[in-house]
Amino acid sequence: MASRPSPDVPSAESRVRVWPALAPTPGAAESLSMKPLQDLYPDDFSHCYGCGRLNADGLHVKSEWHDGEAVARFQPAPQHIALPGFVYGGLIASLIDCHAMATAAAASMEKAGATPGVDQTPRFVTASLQVDYLRPTPLGPELELRSRATEVGERKVLVEVVLRADNAECARGRVVAVRMPAGMAQPTSGRSR
Amino acid sequence: MASRPSPDVPSAESRVRVWPALAPTPGAAESLSMKPLQDLYPDDFSHCYGCGRLNADGLHVKSEWHDGEAVARFQPAPQHIALPGFVYGGLIASLIDCHAMATAAAASMEKAGATPGVDQTPRFVTASLQVDYLRPTPLGPELELRSRATEVGERKVLVEVVLRADNAECARGRVVAVRMPAGMAQPTSGRSR
Repeated sequence: MASRPSPDVPSAESRVRVWPALAPTPGAAESLSMKPLQDLYPDDFSHCYGCGRLNADGLHVKSEWHDGEAVARFQPAPQHIALPGFVYGGLIASLIDCHAMATAAAASMEKAGATPGVDQTPRFVTASLQVDYLRPTPLGPELELRSRATEVGERKVLVEVVLRADNAECARGRVVAVRMPAGMAQPTSGRSR
Repeated sequence: MASRPSPDVPSAESRVRVWPALAPTPGAAESLSMKPLQDLYPDDFSHCYGCGRLNADGLHVKSEWHDGEAVARFQPAPQHIALPGFVYGGLIASLIDCHAMATAAAASMEKAGATPGVDQTPRFVTASLQVDYLRPTPLGPELELRSRATEVGERKVLVEVVLRADNAECARGRVVAVRMPAGMAQPTSGRSR
């Protein structure tokens, strides 16, 4: 029997709202404090397990944008273990994934003249995710992710991410992000619910 | 402040035990029922968030081995959401990761003459993980992962994984697994605790 999403997930009917087209907000960066990019996803698309502010059980990855670079910090929990003493690789992949989507959105916003961290963040989804685990990541210290977009197309953005623990580079990610297809925001015949 | 693992994680002192060298168990496959590969990881290496049977908060990925192929089934929970109606990509990466490590171990066991699902499963770790998200994965149906090792070296094993929902191929993984380095089983100066 298929499980059902929890009640706080919007119904299909409430999911069709599309955010306004990105528009520059002159002076906004100066007059408002910057927020994490994920906190500015539209409510209907803020349930992601990795970074949705409306997912009570999620990881709540928060990425901030400064001068063309996105930075996130994350404290793994004791259960995020691989082998004793080391962080679970699937968690690392998850952090890189959500951080890269926010990076893609911010780079795309800048290109369009909008202000990342102030204006609404558009939702990108992952087309492909490559993670190289350079060394075992110690479980204990806060992790830091830094990323940049290396190619910003209309629909597709390439992102490179570096993950560090105790200032040592532990993993690298290369991620292909694509703007959320319209079909993911509306019920379709291919949907399971 | 660094978080500490939960009390059921073995101490550094208890982690140095190394499992016995793999040896064939004649007739074992016939006389014993097959177990999921992850249930036969040594206790000291069974805390993985993705597949460790001793991680109370984990995902408990279970992979079974039949005729050179590993198969796992996993029911995502409602919180494992990306956008409403779809499975979180980081969960998909996590499932592929743990399933591929078990596949690598099983293929390596067979090459050494041991019996996957009966003899102790050796621990591999992820060197690199590539996931291609072919289509949005519906949240609701059970997911099925199938994988094979495409190259089995002494230290390194390449694994290809296909993830399906409702019989539709939703993601593909290509994973490089390496035999757990000795340094990950013992306290070293590079360890955070």
